[in-house]
Amino acid sequence: MTTLSVFLDVPLAQKLEGSLLKTYKQDSCPKKIFLAFRGRYLTSKGQPWVSSVVPKMRLQIAQDPSLNYEYLPVNGMRSFTEASLKLLFGKHNQVIVENRVGGVHTVGDNGAFQLGAQFLKIWRKDSQTVFIMSSKKGELLCKMGMTEDPSLLFPNGVYLQQAPHDSIFVIGNICDCNLTQSHPTSNKRIFLFFDISSQGLSTGDLEKDTGFLQYFVSQGFEFFCSQSLSKTFGIYDEGVGILVVVALNNELLLCVLSQLMKLTQALWLNPPITGARIITSILCNPALQEEWKQSLKGLVENIMLIKEKVKEKLRLLGTPGSWDHITDQNGSHSYLGLNSKFQQVEYLVRKKHIYLPKNSRINFTCINAHNIDYITQSINEAVLSTKGLD
Amino acid sequence: MTTLSVFLDVPLAQKLEGSLLKTYKQDSCPKKIFLAFRGRYLTSKGQPWVSSVVPKMRLQIAQDPSLNYEYLPVNGMRSFTEASLKLLFGKHNQVIVENRVGGVHTVGDNGAFQLGAQFLKIWRKDSQTVFIMSSKKGELLCKMGMTEDPSLLFPNGVYLQQAPHDSIFVIGNICDCNLTQSHPTSNKRIFLFFDISSQGLSTGDLEKDTGFLQYFVSQGFEFFCSQSLSKTFGIYDEGVGILVVVALNNELLLCVLSQLMKLTQALWLNPPITGARIITSILCNPALQEEWKQSLKGLVENIMLIKEKVKEKLRLLGTPGSWDHITDQNGSHSYLGLNSKFQQVEYLVRKKHIYLPKNSRINFTCINAHNIDYITQSINEAVLSTKGLD
Repeated sequence: MTTLSVFLDVPLAQKLEGSLLKTYKQDSCPKKIFLAFRGRYLTSKGQPWVSSVVPKMRLQIAQDPSLNYEYLPVNGMRSFTEASLKLLFGKHNQVIVENRVGGVHTVGDNGAFQLGAQFLKIWRKDSQTVFIMSSKKGELLCKMGMTEDPSLLFPNGVYLQQAPHDSIFVIGNICDCNLTQSHPTSNKRIFLFFDISSQGLSTGDLEKDTGFLQYFVSQGFEFFCSQSLSKTFGIYDEGVGILVVVALNNELLLCVLSQLMKLTQALWLNPPITGARIITSILCNPALQEEWKQSLKGLVENIMLIKEKVKEKLRLLGTPGSWDHITDQNGSHSYLGLNSKFQQVEYLVRKKHIYLPKNSRINFTCINAHNIDYITQSINEAVLSTKGLD
Repeated sequence: MTTLSVFLDVPLAQKLEGSLLKTYKQDSCPKKIFLAFRGRYLTSKGQPWVSSVVPKMRLQIAQDPSLNYEYLPVNGMRSFTEASLKLLFGKHNQVIVENRVGGVHTVGDNGAFQLGAQFLKIWRKDSQTVFIMSSKKGELLCKMGMTEDPSLLFPNGVYLQQAPHDSIFVIGNICDCNLTQSHPTSNKRIFLFFDISSQGLSTGDLEKDTGFLQYFVSQGFEFFCSQSLSKTFGIYDEGVGILVVVALNNELLLCVLSQLMKLTQALWLNPPITGARIITSILCNPALQEEWKQSLKGLVENIMLIKEKVKEKLRLLGTPGSWDHITDQNGSHSYLGLNSKFQQVEYLVRKKHIYLPKNSRINFTCINAHNIDYITQSINEAVLSTKGLD
């Protein structure tokens, strides 16, 4: 009997791993450096950063005999979502006071985006146009049938009042897009979906990093945020996220949350608890919360220090051009300002075994005392090698 | 400015919580008992059961300074999927030897089913008919557009050779369905999706519980299993699951896994690690694995003991009818054999505050020394109250 496979028509999917990381891994040169790690922070020793308060809490939880390991409800750990919403908006924000913000505990920020996207597909069927800014997650909406329209995205801003009715904006890094709004747009039912993956790691100040949300609250917008809390605590492997919902009033909020719960039930039923338990224990204890905030601040200061050093070393090497943009940018991931057209990036990859993306946006925590000289000297060489080409 | 909510058309979804549990919670009677908890086992003290080996391992992991908390790959923790596949099929099974079984580490068995369903929706578009046996998960496929056909499901079997081409069978409890197959059906491209939520907790013997898989392997079937490992270790709150793929050869397997990884990336990107880490540490250590197996066995023996006691107490009370079916059934969840038509179930719920579903399938671990007398006396009353009605 010859048997026909039911999988006969299934082709091999392209590797998910970016080709840059793949080439890096295949490179046998001992000097090779990868500067494009996403969504994680490295210590000066090249290890994944963990907030100092996390290991203590992990141990305390493992030793706590009073905990039980029952299923979480479908919408997750309530104390966790409550603590996270206060962190995101500030305790006294009007959406909290007016009881019109809520959250569903999800499997990381990707799970949160997936959940939000499924909701929009069902309940915002008329939204055919999506504008995606500084976020990879928005692609999911395109795969679900929406059309990406880049027409309203200008280098320094987005004009909301030109957006069509019922359009959706997915916004990864608010700093990258200055949303200008000279006319009221609320009657256009524009929907915003913020992707907030590392509150506090842009400026080192939690409130400052998400202060922009207040603007949209005050303008009467309703929106979703897919929020990750894994990264800011250094619990990368637990996938702790929230889908945040801001609605105009409590009644609408409850309707949206109830529909989200139905979707969550099919997605994973109950979210995993460990990461949320660690984070909630920290956020609900003022002393631990303070220690965590200090550790975040320390991380951000260290990032700024690395950037300063890179800039200073390039100055001492006499590298042509201004390098102020390096320290002008917030956060761990910033543009180095190299020129792909003049093959400066390619020079670094091919000749120096330093791997970075074409747009030269790198993770500065990948630079440390051991590799900074090699990296800055290589940048200098790359720039000199293309001098005069502009 | 009046603002129109973008959520105006979103109605309140019906509560997910079953109405039975809801009524139970609202019942203020101190005698109330809930016998319908799903997917968890209670100890004789009414607490969620945890395998004795889990707390030790939890502590050991929290104290291990060598662990890092980096993201898992999209397909999850490799040592975890490998150990789980060996557990499911046995180390020397031909699908393992021939390298044509693989797994994707998922967020619980619901996550595994969601992932498998998404795959089938894309790659088995022609499968319009689904037969769902003893599984709640199959409903997801109906929501995705497939039609449920109960025509081939008979009380004691399913006739695979009568199934239409390209149909899908979702099978929750293999004991409930005797799949008979007198003619070869492989050329019909019938696809099986097993939902295995508690290997070892049916008979107390891990191998025996999943021995039926060997039959389908030997008949040349390809299939998926959505497997939960949370329940058999008592780590209910971590959602540890696997989507298992059996293909006819390694090449086909790799194609399917590669497509599943693409879907996983959008669903949650990286699965959470804690549960998988605990389970892998136990499965990879022969002494701990043995201790775990013993704890499973103890749990199953306890379930059998409860069932024996219930039967014996009903016999002593002189309750009319035979109650052998209670001990004839395997596992924690079994039919009590009460009659919904004669309102025996309703009698228990309304008059006795004992909550059980209409089909009288209860979780026997909810019965313990404190409530067994009240429960059996109430069953006796319920049966007597409807005597003569048949």
